[in-house]
Amino acid sequence: MSAAAQDERRARAVWSGLVEPGDEVAGAVLGALGATDALAWLADARATLEAGGTVDLPGSATSRRRLGTAAARWVRRLDPDADAALDRSLSVLDRHGGSLLVPGDTEWPVGLDDLGASAPPCLWIRGDAQALTAASIALIGARACTTYGEHVTAELAAGVAEAGWTVVSGGAYGIDAAAHRVSLAVGGPTVAVLAGGVDRLHPAGNDLLLRRIADGAGAVVSEVPPGSVPTRGRFLLRNRLIAALTRATVVVEAAWRSGALSTAGHAAALLRPVGAVPGPVTSAASAGCHRLLRDALAVCVTDAREVLELAGQVAAAPPGSDAEVAVLEALTRRTGRQVEHLAAITGLPEPVVRASLGTLELGGQVEQDQGLWRRARPGGQY
Amino acid sequence: MSAAAQDERRARAVWSGLVEPGDEVAGAVLGALGATDALAWLADARATLEAGGTVDLPGSATSRRRLGTAAARWVRRLDPDADAALDRSLSVLDRHGGSLLVPGDTEWPVGLDDLGASAPPCLWIRGDAQALTAASIALIGARACTTYGEHVTAELAAGVAEAGWTVVSGGAYGIDAAAHRVSLAVGGPTVAVLAGGVDRLHPAGNDLLLRRIADGAGAVVSEVPPGSVPTRGRFLLRNRLIAALTRATVVVEAAWRSGALSTAGHAAALLRPVGAVPGPVTSAASAGCHRLLRDALAVCVTDAREVLELAGQVAAAPPGSDAEVAVLEALTRRTGRQVEHLAAITGLPEPVVRASLGTLELGGQVEQDQGLWRRARPGGQY
Repeated sequence: MSAAAQDERRARAVWSGLVEPGDEVAGAVLGALGATDALAWLADARATLEAGGTVDLPGSATSRRRLGTAAARWVRRLDPDADAALDRSLSVLDRHGGSLLVPGDTEWPVGLDDLGASAPPCLWIRGDAQALTAASIALIGARACTTYGEHVTAELAAGVAEAGWTVVSGGAYGIDAAAHRVSLAVGGPTVAVLAGGVDRLHPAGNDLLLRRIADGAGAVVSEVPPGSVPTRGRFLLRNRLIAALTRATVVVEAAWRSGALSTAGHAAALLRPVGAVPGPVTSAASAGCHRLLRDALAVCVTDAREVLELAGQVAAAPPGSDAEVAVLEALTRRTGRQVEHLAAITGLPEPVVRASLGTLELGGQVEQDQGLWRRARPGGQY
Repeated sequence: MSAAAQDERRARAVWSGLVEPGDEVAGAVLGALGATDALAWLADARATLEAGGTVDLPGSATSRRRLGTAAARWVRRLDPDADAALDRSLSVLDRHGGSLLVPGDTEWPVGLDDLGASAPPCLWIRGDAQALTAASIALIGARACTTYGEHVTAELAAGVAEAGWTVVSGGAYGIDAAAHRVSLAVGGPTVAVLAGGVDRLHPAGNDLLLRRIADGAGAVVSEVPPGSVPTRGRFLLRNRLIAALTRATVVVEAAWRSGALSTAGHAAALLRPVGAVPGPVTSAASAGCHRLLRDALAVCVTDAREVLELAGQVAAAPPGSDAEVAVLEALTRRTGRQVEHLAAITGLPEPVVRASLGTLELGGQVEQDQGLWRRARPGGQY
C-alpha cells in the first residue's frame, strides 16, 4: 500500500471518531477533499481559531453556515495528538483481532456506497471482514420478543443461512440474538452491527454470543472507534448500516414504535426490499410488523423461501401486476417513451402507467430522463 | 303493483330456478327482453323443439351457439306448469315468513347491480329484507378455524355491529358462524347468504343460528328457490353475492386454498376493498390470509377500527403511506410543482415521489398537467 493510501486509511479512521454517524456534511467534505486533506484542513482551521482568526469557508451562505457548525463540532473532538490517539484505538482493535475497512478495500461492502454522503468513513471490524462481502439478509426485531417471534426467527435464520446467505442483525436481545444464534448453530456466518465500539460488546448479556460471532466465521462491526458508547442516536443511525449492508431487511417482531421500524424505513429509502412477518393481531410484539404491512412499506413474508424470494427481487424482480408487465413490455432499452405514448401502446389509463413506472423504477427495472422512459440496463443496481 | 310488474316479479322467480347462479347469458337475455318476455320466448322455443322444429336465434354464430346451449339447459328445467311450481315455492317461502326481492324493489341491494349480467334474477329472503339495505361488511373465513380466528372474528364483528354496520357472512361453521353469532349477541342485524334454498338451512349444525338470524332483525338470503341443494358451484358463486352485497370483505382466517379466497377475489374484481387478518405464520388457518397480503390483494387489518376504515375508503381514501402524506402535503391546489421540486421539499428520493404521485393520482387526490403536479379539486372522484 502506498504511503498516501495508508495516510488516507488512517485519516478516515480519525474522522470516524470526529463525526457522529450519518454526518452528511463530513461525508461531502471527505468526498471532495479526501480524508487526509480534510483532516489537514480541519487542523489548520483549529489552529486559526485558537489564534483568534477567522476560517474562510467555501460555498453559499447556507452551506458556509452548515459547514461552520459541523466543523466546530469536529474541532472539539479532534485530539491534539490525533496520531497517537488513533494508534491507541488501533492497538485496542488489534488486541481483539480486529481490522479496519475503508472504501476501496476488497472487503468494503459495496452496498454502503448507496448511503452517499451519509456512508461511514470506515468500519471497525472484529472477526472476519470477508463475512461482509457475502450476499446477506437482515433479520431484525424487538428486544422484547415472544416465543413465537423467537421460533419464527429461528426458522428464517436457519433457512437463510442454509441457503448460503449471511444473516445480519443488530446484536441486541430478543429477535437479533435469536437470528445470530441460529445462524451460528447451522454454521452460517453472521454479522452483528453495533452502535458502540467493537471493544465494548453491548448489551453485556450478549457478550458471549457476540464474541462467538467474532471468533467464528462472522464479524462484529461498528462505524465508531473502540471505546465509543452506544447512544440512542447511534442506535438509530446504526440501523441505516444494517439496511445498506443487506439485500433485504425482514422485521420479525416489532412493537408499534420500535427501532426495527427505523431499519425498515432506511431499507425502503435505499430501495431495498422490506419484509414483515405477520403474527397474531392480539400480540403487541407484532403490531409494528402489521403497521409496515398496512403502510405497504413491507411485503408479508412467512418462511425462509419467501425471504429469499424477497431478497432475490433485487436481481430479477418479476413485475407485480399485469399493468407493470404491460408497461415494461412496451419499453425498450434504446428508445425513450413518454407516458402518453405508453398509455396508447398498452391501452392503460395514464395514471396506471405512471404508477406502474413508479413501481418499476423503484425496482430498478426502468429509468427516465427528461420524461422519456427506458428499460434500465441489467445489473445497474448493486 | 301493476299486473305487468307482478308478472315480471313472478317470471324472475321462475328464472331463478332455471339458471345456475352467475349465468351471464340469462342475465343478458333478461336484460334485453325482460323476464316475462324471455320466459314466453323460452316456452315457445320448447314447444317448437318438441314439435321437431328449429328455433331461430339472433346474433353472431358464436352468440347463437352460446344462447342455444344455455337455452337447452333452461328448457330442461322449465316445469310444464311453471306457474303452479312457482306457487308451490312461494308458499314454502311464505310458511317461513319469507319474501321475494327483485331489482327495483326498495330493499333490492344496489351493490348487486355491479354484478352486471351475472346479477341474480331475484333474491329469496327469510327474515327482514330491510337488513339488506344497510351499509354492511363481509366477515368471512375458514370453517376449520382456530380459537384465535374465532376470538378475532368476535372482536371484529362486535366492533363492526356496534358501529351500526351489518355483518354479512356465509352461514358456514367456523368464522362465518362466529361472525353471525357475535353480531346477534351485540344486537346488530346480520345477513347470511346461503348457497342452497332458504327453506333448507345448511349446514344442519347451524340450523338454530340461521333461524335466529331469520327470526330476528337479520336475514337469510339465497338466489336459488326453496328446495335447491347447495352444490359446490353454487357455493363458489354465492361468494360473489357476499362480495357484491358489502362495502368491504374481510377474511379472518383461511387456509392456502379456501372458499374465502374466492370471495376475496370476487370483491377485488368488483373493486371492493378487501382486508385480511394476519395470524401466526405457524398456523395453516392463516396461510390464505397471508397469501392475500403477499399478493397485495388485501390490506392488513388488525381491529374493527381498521375494518371500518377499509370499508370507508370507498367514500374518502386517506393516503396510505407516509411518503404519500408527505407528497400530498407538499402540494397545493394552485401552484403546480415538478417531481424534482417535490423531492427537494419532502426529502424523498424522486422515484418514491413519483410512485407516491402515481398512487395519489389513482386515488384522484392529485392531478398533473405538463409535468406540474397539483392537489385535485375535492369531489372529483366518486
